[in-house]
Amino acid sequence: MTSASARRAYALHTQPPGYADHKADHLARLHKIEGQVRGISRMVTDDRYCIDVLTQITAAIRALQEVALGLLDDHVRGCVTHAARTDPAQAEEKYTELSDTLRRALRV
Amino acid sequence: MTSASARRAYALHTQPPGYADHKADHLARLHKIEGQVRGISRMVTDDRYCIDVLTQITAAIRALQEVALGLLDDHVRGCVTHAARTDPAQAEEKYTELSDTLRRALRV
Amino acid sequence: MTSASARRAYALHTQPPGYADHKADHLARLHKIEGQVRGISRMVTDDRYCIDVLTQITAAIRALQEVALGLLDDHVRGCVTHAARTDPAQAEEKYTELSDTLRRALRV
Amino acid sequence: MTSASARRAYALHTQPPGYADHKADHLARLHKIEGQVRGISRMVTDDRYCIDVLTQITAAIRALQEVALGLLDDHVRGCVTHAARTDPAQAEEKYTELSDTLRRALRV
Repeated sequence: MTSASARRAYALHTQPPGYADHKADHLARLHKIEGQVRGISRMVTDDRYCIDVLTQITAAIRALQEVALGLLDDHVRGCVTHAARTDPAQAEEKYTELSDTLRRALRV
Repeated sequence: MTSASARRAYALHTQPPGYADHKADHLARLHKIEGQVRGISRMVTDDRYCIDVLTQITAAIRALQEVALGLLDDHVRGCVTHAARTDPAQAEEKYTELSDTLRRALRV
Repeated sequence: MTSASARRAYALHTQPPGYADHKADHLARLHKIEGQVRGISRMVTDDRYCIDVLTQITAAIRALQEVALGLLDDHVRGCVTHAARTDPAQAEEKYTELSDTLRRALRV
Repeated sequence: MTSASARRAYALHTQPPGYADHKADHLARLHKIEGQVRGISRMVTDDRYCIDVLTQITAAIRALQEVALGLLDDHVRGCVTHAARTDPAQAEEKYTELSDTLRRALRV
């Protein structure tokens, strides 16, 4: 590892994540989603009607996407902006990484 | 079966759900997804990098969509086919219900 | 080709498609979408703001998904139901094909 | 430039859009998508099999999402970064606008 990439790795991982200010909120949502998934298992165990189970799965997917949107917003406001202001090479890396993440999220 | 769940089963159709043959498989997947969501909470607690958390959220969403696809397949092979063969009025209801479910799943 | 699969191919392709009754409606929507895409090109040519272009792309995607939902509904009511009522082997084929199509549409 | 489009450009930001460097590429993709949609209309006119039409609709949706991803990338590298470096109030506006756009694109 070059000292440049070592410094970059340091900058990336020893500072608080972009979502530091919304950590409690994200954790509360994730905790609720865990309960939703457990509830879906219970519906299947109880032989509930397919369409009702599907409706709950769709709700859980949307809740996960809502967390993802919150994290993306935090990431752009925090990590991407920080890099854009201070380190052009790191900014370039962030743009590519963000684009790859959005491609996966949109499943193109 | 308790009288409560008996009433529920009656209200639902008094027949096993379309996914009866794949129940164990769906439950195993849902159990794994519950663990994935718990793992995502742990990543947030541990201040893991935003993009890594987002990657895991995308994986959990795909796993839920895979369960949804399995249930949709079971539903068409079971419930929709049964209605199509035996009861035109009920079949009509099933088609509309399936279309509404797909609209929600695709989030048009 | 066995005579069975030949008959199946015949049944599949020489009868009107499942969407025969909604053909004019699907064509009208598709014609409108073609205009939407042309409008998006014009926005790019005119250097319109990125976010405004993205909003129109999202609208065109939704319009295409709406056509897809209509075709899926027609397909289940027509082709899948016909096979379910008359030919178990062909029905099996239809279920698998539908499931594959939904997987691609949901991009799991 | 006509006075009407001049006023429009002024209203928009009086600066080139974030995608200025990839304009020809985006236009080429959009032109191809317009042809794809026209091809889908032709398939419907010709009574082609529902599933084959659906496959082409899915391909057109993916192609539009690919253009959207390119524009998003350009937007973050250009407009958002420019605002982040020069004008905190405008940056705030860009973050909110980007988040709203992603919410619509993900259809949460």
